[in-house]
Amino acid sequence: MKSDRGTGATPKASTTISTLLSKPVVLTGDRTTGPLHLGHYVGSLKTRLKLQDETEQYLLLADIQALTDNIGRHREVSENVIEVAIDYLAVGIDPNKSTIFIQSQVPELAELSMLLLNLVTVARLERNPTIKEEIRFRGFERDIPAGFLIYPVSQAADIAAFKATIVPVGEDQLPMIEQTNELVRSFNASVNQDVLVECKALLSSVGRLPGIDGKTKMSKSMDNAIRLGAEPDEIRKAVNRMYTDSRHLRVEDPGQVEGNVVFSLLDAFEPDTQRLAELKHHYQSGGLADSTLKRLLEERLQALLEPIRLRRQRLAMDRGEVMAVLKRGTERARNKAAATVAEVKRALGLAYFV
Amino acid sequence: MKSDRGTGATPKASTTISTLLSKPVVLTGDRTTGPLHLGHYVGSLKTRLKLQDETEQYLLLADIQALTDNIGRHREVSENVIEVAIDYLAVGIDPNKSTIFIQSQVPELAELSMLLLNLVTVARLERNPTIKEEIRFRGFERDIPAGFLIYPVSQAADIAAFKATIVPVGEDQLPMIEQTNELVRSFNASVNQDVLVECKALLSSVGRLPGIDGKTKMSKSMDNAIRLGAEPDEIRKAVNRMYTDSRHLRVEDPGQVEGNVVFSLLDAFEPDTQRLAELKHHYQSGGLADSTLKRLLEERLQALLEPIRLRRQRLAMDRGEVMAVLKRGTERARNKAAATVAEVKRALGLAYFV
Repeated sequence: MKSDRGTGATPKASTTISTLLSKPVVLTGDRTTGPLHLGHYVGSLKTRLKLQDETEQYLLLADIQALTDNIGRHREVSENVIEVAIDYLAVGIDPNKSTIFIQSQVPELAELSMLLLNLVTVARLERNPTIKEEIRFRGFERDIPAGFLIYPVSQAADIAAFKATIVPVGEDQLPMIEQTNELVRSFNASVNQDVLVECKALLSSVGRLPGIDGKTKMSKSMDNAIRLGAEPDEIRKAVNRMYTDSRHLRVEDPGQVEGNVVFSLLDAFEPDTQRLAELKHHYQSGGLADSTLKRLLEERLQALLEPIRLRRQRLAMDRGEVMAVLKRGTERARNKAAATVAEVKRALGLAYFV
Repeated sequence: MKSDRGTGATPKASTTISTLLSKPVVLTGDRTTGPLHLGHYVGSLKTRLKLQDETEQYLLLADIQALTDNIGRHREVSENVIEVAIDYLAVGIDPNKSTIFIQSQVPELAELSMLLLNLVTVARLERNPTIKEEIRFRGFERDIPAGFLIYPVSQAADIAAFKATIVPVGEDQLPMIEQTNELVRSFNASVNQDVLVECKALLSSVGRLPGIDGKTKMSKSMDNAIRLGAEPDEIRKAVNRMYTDSRHLRVEDPGQVEGNVVFSLLDAFEPDTQRLAELKHHYQSGGLADSTLKRLLEERLQALLEPIRLRRQRLAMDRGEVMAVLKRGTERARNKAAATVAEVKRALGLAYFV
């Protein structure tokens, strides 16, 4: 088997046809540390809904990666595998178009990780800006779990195992893509064959959704998120709590749009951009009440989340069917990853029994 | 399934019978970087020949571990898998008593390694004296391949996957056993179950064999070794080149026994200890020629290595049969490791489809 595309140099005649016919391959997914929320919807799920029609898309339920900093909370990690899968299906991910699979059930990913670890130095991993930032954020200092330091390699293995050509990421994840491509090039150079394939980052066009408290990031662990499965009452309360402009005390005062969570969410969920522009202008001039805006936003969110919530409820009652979807997806994913890892091992001379 | 023995605390009634009936489990093996030599024979192979009758012994052909610092020489690593296997069989390892298997063909070892990596910090790995020493020896400085830094974890996974209770090691490898048991305890504590089993080091009673040049260690890479498959002429030349006592210039001079390679090897290979004691006394008093001693040693080595060489030659002509032995051993080993890793994953809640 040859790789689906070259790695920059002259294309090889033998791969031309498959290159022409093959769809881009997408690898993306989520750590299974909790159910998904509006931030995921805007930041990644909407993109995946589009990509599933145009690409060969693999959605990774990253339980192993979640364990790298949650070994004590392993029950939570495994229980959220099905929760995240239900979120995927509820927003419209079609398991016949996208392959949803569980990381821990594809041992080939661990095998490839262990091999790629030989191609990167400890110093290089410690220089990774994403890792540096997260080490700071988690307060690990010198007590970084080894699994955490090396998770970019594990992520590179996930991407490389599927020969993914497109990886949707946020700006802060770009160093991960760089690290992946370094490992791909380094592996291909050591075996003197184009076995693995470089990938391109697909940067999210929308910014990150802020938390309802005005913090830069909506996040379950910061308790400032609206779950995709939120009940109507929960949505209403969240919108009411939402940070607007702390100096906008009287309706007739001019208000601030920048940093105003209600506007950030309207930017994401109000389809009538003309109307939204008018509202912003009105708010900035004074005379537009926060409550009016919040009513509009709540309407949008209730309309968006109602069908998702109903599908979630239906799926939650048929967990057997959800597990069957995961089983099929995991088998399909494993076949693909196993083929790549077999190629990798063959290139290293580690195919003894074939 | 319960673990075969407790981990120090009160024994559990349910495991008592299997504990009483089960043999100790041994895990040991070699990096496949070259054929084995007399140093291996004295340091480990003789022990394994004894252990195979009394224990459940697993012999690991550690190609993955060899790659941690030989990624550029991967062909050499994989080609030596069969060479080392032939050495095992030629010295009398019986594949019906010992399970000889190839590390890269047991993906469960990579899975367990990746999980155990979450239970150790980078700082702890960097403090490992064996790793520190080897980093110095290899001149890695800050450019330590990540795979090399974490190889004690991979080694712990190998031991833990087989629930090995005995691991034969040299003195310098004791920190590895300590690291393994730390990981075992830490894993069991995180899942609050005795899934993995602690091991004990079996320290080699004989010292390390020196190289023929007098350096402290016989080693292929230092070109001071006598291969198990050495031809008669090669053995003769090696014995002739052997370092004795550089100040022992005339036969009648007193000679030094300490640091004299010929005596070190006679210590290992001359069965008549009475005679050897007399020879040492004679040498120290003066009047015993190096050539006389070398003739005796050569005789012993030729007698030891001839049947090994002949079995090696026969096995080398029937590589298909050797590969069949490795295939059977690898299947048996994989079954055992897979059972442990399934238990590990079950304990972490990562058994979704059972």
